[in-house]
Amino acid sequence: MATAPSVSYSITVRLEVPAGGKAVSGITQHVENAGGIVTALDVSSAVGDTLRIDVTIATRDTEHAEAIVSVLESIEGIKIHKVSDRTFLMHLGGKIEMKSKVPLRTREELSMAYTPGVARVSLAIARNKEDARRLTIKRNSVAVVTDGSAVLGLGNIGPEAAMPVMEGKAALFKRFAGIDAWPICLDTQDPDEIVRTVQIIAPGFGGINLEDISAPRCFEIEARLRELLDIPVFHDDQHGTAICVLAALTNALRVVKKDLGEVKIAMAGAGAAGSAILKLLIHAGARDVIVCDFHGAVHQGRSDLDSSLQWIADNTNAGGYDGDLKGAVRGADVFIGVSAPGILDGGDIEGMAHDSIVFALANPEPEVNPADAREHAAVVATGRSDYPNQINNVLAFPGVFRGLLDAQADGITIEMLTAAARALACVVTDDELGPNYIVPSVFHPEVTTAVAAAVREAAGGRRHAAPEESSEITYG
Amino acid sequence: MATAPSVSYSITVRLEVPAGGKAVSGITQHVENAGGIVTALDVSSAVGDTLRIDVTIATRDTEHAEAIVSVLESIEGIKIHKVSDRTFLMHLGGKIEMKSKVPLRTREELSMAYTPGVARVSLAIARNKEDARRLTIKRNSVAVVTDGSAVLGLGNIGPEAAMPVMEGKAALFKRFAGIDAWPICLDTQDPDEIVRTVQIIAPGFGGINLEDISAPRCFEIEARLRELLDIPVFHDDQHGTAICVLAALTNALRVVKKDLGEVKIAMAGAGAAGSAILKLLIHAGARDVIVCDFHGAVHQGRSDLDSSLQWIADNTNAGGYDGDLKGAVRGADVFIGVSAPGILDGGDIEGMAHDSIVFALANPEPEVNPADAREHAAVVATGRSDYPNQINNVLAFPGVFRGLLDAQADGITIEMLTAAARALACVVTDDELGPNYIVPSVFHPEVTTAVAAAVREAAGGRRHAAPEESSEITYG
Repeated sequence: MATAPSVSYSITVRLEVPAGGKAVSGITQHVENAGGIVTALDVSSAVGDTLRIDVTIATRDTEHAEAIVSVLESIEGIKIHKVSDRTFLMHLGGKIEMKSKVPLRTREELSMAYTPGVARVSLAIARNKEDARRLTIKRNSVAVVTDGSAVLGLGNIGPEAAMPVMEGKAALFKRFAGIDAWPICLDTQDPDEIVRTVQIIAPGFGGINLEDISAPRCFEIEARLRELLDIPVFHDDQHGTAICVLAALTNALRVVKKDLGEVKIAMAGAGAAGSAILKLLIHAGARDVIVCDFHGAVHQGRSDLDSSLQWIADNTNAGGYDGDLKGAVRGADVFIGVSAPGILDGGDIEGMAHDSIVFALANPEPEVNPADAREHAAVVATGRSDYPNQINNVLAFPGVFRGLLDAQADGITIEMLTAAARALACVVTDDELGPNYIVPSVFHPEVTTAVAAAVREAAGGRRHAAPEESSEITYG
Repeated sequence: MATAPSVSYSITVRLEVPAGGKAVSGITQHVENAGGIVTALDVSSAVGDTLRIDVTIATRDTEHAEAIVSVLESIEGIKIHKVSDRTFLMHLGGKIEMKSKVPLRTREELSMAYTPGVARVSLAIARNKEDARRLTIKRNSVAVVTDGSAVLGLGNIGPEAAMPVMEGKAALFKRFAGIDAWPICLDTQDPDEIVRTVQIIAPGFGGINLEDISAPRCFEIEARLRELLDIPVFHDDQHGTAICVLAALTNALRVVKKDLGEVKIAMAGAGAAGSAILKLLIHAGARDVIVCDFHGAVHQGRSDLDSSLQWIADNTNAGGYDGDLKGAVRGADVFIGVSAPGILDGGDIEGMAHDSIVFALANPEPEVNPADAREHAAVVATGRSDYPNQINNVLAFPGVFRGLLDAQADGITIEMLTAAARALACVVTDDELGPNYIVPSVFHPEVTTAVAAAVREAAGGRRHAAPEESSEITYG
């Protein structure tokens, strides 16, 4: 599948051209001929008879960027000075920082924020541990925890290499929900050690967001932490994805006027995301699901069922279908893929039921070419931002944690996840709803507040007063 | 020792008084008669015949604050609405936050800061782990780690209650050195678990600041972590204090024109701070030291010597003095106390050598009343902000870590600590130096830069280029 030039692969080329020559005007044309897009052209200075120009170019990928630089080098009169990469520039020095919310301009302010004044605040918490939610950042902070074992689609790249992703996640938490998240990248991949480490560092945080931990270890780690901790533990790859898929499917079914309890669903992928999606769909009322993995349909007769696959066999595929994915998709109303690129083609989609729904969420390359799927399906969604109906976890996790923190929740229930999905679906009004608009934009102003309110209510509605609302302060 | 009213114990009382009456003018007088100081008096609104007034009052302590509120309540016509505590107000909701340094306004910015663009940055670090110092916050971040076992003078109050102190420390790191520190409060006090946990969370940090961990556990934890990690590990209660004491003593000796190698030093306290001070003094040239603990002078003949006390016995008290602290102080040139309140009196100081130096650093109540000490000693320093010559770790740790991070140091040496102390001492010029000015103010603009430069140089002078200086960006 050919990709379009993208700012993710954007470069800035600093070059010198003779002043008054025709070189400048040729630059954009040359770049476009080479398949790139000039997104900015700044003349930064004129030195003698030459102009210094910064040209920013969206390219398809690294090789494409290099090819375009070669084309520019070959233009007569142009001298390339340096090539910088906008994405790398954005990451230089890290993407997040710590800021003090209190002024420390005078000795008096120091003595209130730190010793000796802080001692009274600490003593107040020592007397009543729950006051940590009132007098420290615990009320608004989330640890973004990974072991670097399954980072994006990159696999087991380790904790250092996971940092840019976790920093990005932290930045999204703040941008979309005002939450103070900090990345904690673990130098161990042993589940016992991960569980114990998270338990040990938990006191300063109001929630734990597990991220990019490989299956099946992530199931055990999450389950044990939920048992051990008195703050919510959320594995975004599982539950964030499941919330978004249930919301999107709810709206896709509104479009085609089918009922979740009646439709036949074929799923590809039984890993972290697939299992979580399945559980949420069943909880929401789905009754006819077949899940396939690399070995075909999961059914009771298979000899390779671990506990997770056994749960799937027990709760899906009542008819005992033992064929492959293509067979499961035939006649299905809904396909949901969280698996591998290019495993279905247009013909497979054509063989689905009338008004079919296709969620091909493998990233960056979906299970089926979205353009091909569109020819036969009524609604198509992907994980990609360059197609309509992007299923993006940013729609869920900020609001979910906002709701959990505001409720001072001590855990997460499947009812909260379902409520989050319903609220997310409802952000799209009947007027707006359509085959190309089943989920709101991540920038839709109501997404976070709607999801947060639903989670808060499902958590019991307890809402912690904002600092400025806490008027009565007792002596420490 | 009577203390003066302080903003650390400042309250704001909201009250209502009859408009036009004499009650308002009496408020300040009544507060002053009760020993408080009115620092602000704001009329916030007038309702009918009454005025609503917020009076902010510095008090001595909690009981004093309550007494003053009682006095106000007894004034005829005055109605107390609520009493709030300025220090607690400052801590509400926590004192720090996480901020994104990158804009996330558009889908394009999202796709560079997070998926898919971030994948290339992660891959670059996966290929070269050292790039984490260039492309993530690791280059500028410090974990402020405690187990809550020895918080300030409050003892073992646990990880939640330690949070306000660690947040304050993080705020100081940013304020004085631009460092992004995050509090990590551990729910374990087992040295093995603390060591392993810090090792596991280390990848995302450029340094570890251990804080308020009780002795002797802190020695073992620090030593093992230094061995295990490739980033600097600094125990501020030990090394930060030692740097400040060596710097202050260097300047006090300049004042009285004595030489470190010649003076007789008596120390009280053999815990975390005492041991670290002793080692740094000896490394800097001190030769005649006697250290006392609760049982008197540490000497070879004692039967209770653990490994830390044995080191002291081996390296001090060559004469084998086996008496008590008061005897050790008699005739000494220097007294350094990091121990307990009120263990010496003016007579003890009178019995010291001519032009004696007294550092009574127990907090909040020093080993000897500073006013009494001043009558006999040439130079007196304390840990308190309400006397001259405050020995405050804020003078050291921000600059030390600034230097370590800039040098990308993989550890800390005693040479770096000594260099930091020398640099800190040198901030006070010969013109400024005097009995009441042996250390600079924490707000002195040169403190952090001088200490950082000295540590960076001692660490090998390697200076990481600032992000804006890194002009050549390779493809990821």
